[in-house]
Amino acid sequence: MSAEIIPLRQPDGESAPTLDPMLALTASGMNAVNAVILDRMQSEIPLIPRLAGHLIAGGGKRLRPMLTLAAVELVGYQGNRHHKLAAAVEFIHTATLLHDDVVDGSEMRRGKAAANIIFGNPATVLVGDFLFSRSFELMTEDGSLKVLKILSGASAVIAEGEVAQLSAQRRIETSEERYLHIIGAKTAALFAAASRIAAVVAECDDAEERALDDYGRNLGIAFQLVDDAIDYDSDAAKMGKDRGDDFREGKMTLPVILAYSRGNEEEREFWRGAILGHRSSDSDLDHAVSLIAKHDCLIDTRERARHFAQRAADALAIFPDGQARRAMIEAVQFAVSRGY
Amino acid sequence: MSAEIIPLRQPDGESAPTLDPMLALTASGMNAVNAVILDRMQSEIPLIPRLAGHLIAGGGKRLRPMLTLAAVELVGYQGNRHHKLAAAVEFIHTATLLHDDVVDGSEMRRGKAAANIIFGNPATVLVGDFLFSRSFELMTEDGSLKVLKILSGASAVIAEGEVAQLSAQRRIETSEERYLHIIGAKTAALFAAASRIAAVVAECDDAEERALDDYGRNLGIAFQLVDDAIDYDSDAAKMGKDRGDDFREGKMTLPVILAYSRGNEEEREFWRGAILGHRSSDSDLDHAVSLIAKHDCLIDTRERARHFAQRAADALAIFPDGQARRAMIEAVQFAVSRGY
Repeated sequence: MSAEIIPLRQPDGESAPTLDPMLALTASGMNAVNAVILDRMQSEIPLIPRLAGHLIAGGGKRLRPMLTLAAVELVGYQGNRHHKLAAAVEFIHTATLLHDDVVDGSEMRRGKAAANIIFGNPATVLVGDFLFSRSFELMTEDGSLKVLKILSGASAVIAEGEVAQLSAQRRIETSEERYLHIIGAKTAALFAAASRIAAVVAECDDAEERALDDYGRNLGIAFQLVDDAIDYDSDAAKMGKDRGDDFREGKMTLPVILAYSRGNEEEREFWRGAILGHRSSDSDLDHAVSLIAKHDCLIDTRERARHFAQRAADALAIFPDGQARRAMIEAVQFAVSRGY
Repeated sequence: MSAEIIPLRQPDGESAPTLDPMLALTASGMNAVNAVILDRMQSEIPLIPRLAGHLIAGGGKRLRPMLTLAAVELVGYQGNRHHKLAAAVEFIHTATLLHDDVVDGSEMRRGKAAANIIFGNPATVLVGDFLFSRSFELMTEDGSLKVLKILSGASAVIAEGEVAQLSAQRRIETSEERYLHIIGAKTAALFAAASRIAAVVAECDDAEERALDDYGRNLGIAFQLVDDAIDYDSDAAKMGKDRGDDFREGKMTLPVILAYSRGNEEEREFWRGAILGHRSSDSDLDHAVSLIAKHDCLIDTRERARHFAQRAADALAIFPDGQARRAMIEAVQFAVSRGY
């Protein structure tokens, strides 16, 4: 056990944080996970691997299974049960993305046309269901009821978070508290579960299991908040999606919540119209970006993200220093430095 | 063990078969299952129970959980584990129906407006995901890995069957063999699993487990074929859906497969156009019905259904005669007599 303070900020002059240490730490495990993913997305129905492969081969970072792999290194687990489980996590995530794209009517995903655009909504919904079922088959093969409980619970929470977000859509009065609750469910629950299951396969004690859950959950929230910020300040290429997607979909995200609460009546009137979908032109987006900048809403969204990132890093204090912990902390630093 | 021949057909003069003996057999268990369903479809997100309740309270027969309950009676299981599991089966089915209605763009379900019409596609997809996750939570709480394997496997097969059906849509060359394979997956797999899990909780031997699987699977195929027939010969009220739904959606079902294969070139030309969606008027439907009648395709679809129904009934021969077996056999007879 170590109890030192883990500094999240890099000392001046150091190079920008990257995901490279995490990628190096998990490289061989990720090969094994990718093999499971490719094997288990197969089906005698050719459309299934074709559609699933479009997204899965589409260059996602596989951040969630990577968390499982990194956490396994952190706790010193020697077996290989986590390969199937990390693949199950990625299948849950992939199923969620496919259904999200149908729900949002997305046109782009990871810099390519979204699956729903190429294959249509019906096939996209059904292949999502297939991958979701496959994830439970993988977990069942592993045989840990504790892992099944964690991931089935997370899946239900994710779906609740998605419905909650849908209910909040186009509702200007969504509060910051409510929004944090939503992204805690729709995004952070799977980050938390992905980390936590490493402690389960390694038979760690409860404190370590909770610490990994806390790490993943806080990282997930930080990650989502930075995504929210990037949607208003970066060009499309950085994220593989169009800038202003959230704006055009009337999504309430933290930059908008802050800009609305800090705005004068004229600005609030603009936001009401925007969130209701009455202002979705490029010049409307430019105006939204200027209002967000005027009230420092991107800076503060990133500050909020940094707060959760710090909590994620601190959660790892109970684990010994070493390559794995350093990589997991730099991943947190990387998450909040994206888009700068 | 008994080995007598089980006659599927009723002797002349007997009253028509009903689901009543099955309903009586499972009445008290069904109350317990309904309590689980109502309890576990709740969420702090109000839209979830509202949308789920629209379908769940909408008067479905709950045939699949009823199969679990009846099979439990058949094998003499005394516990109550099957209540949660039967609820899990119904949640899987409900999730599938919600996604089906999105996929098909259905307007009616069980005689009411379909959930997607009232609540929109996005919420309908997501609440389906929620119920699906909940079903795995219920199974995990029960804790049988064998049940989890059966139901996660069935779920993946159902999704594959749905994708296969989507791929076959508007393809006139779909063969009877291929079609039976599709409905074996999309419909019969859950009937089979629902019956089979009763044998698992009761710790039956392999032969009994397989027999219940065979019963459910053959009943499911028979059930689907009769549904297919009814879509071309009954009025909408009987099914709570519009006559001709399958026709207008360009669905290849057995009556169409038979009519196409038995038709002359002019008739085949009609079917090609119909399945491609170029003929969907009321008079086109009337013409389709007349072609199907001309070649005895409804009679033969029902004969095919009767064949599978007989196999379902025969699968029960290894169980002792009694109230449960008689009810399960009459349920088969009922399934194939519907719509007459």
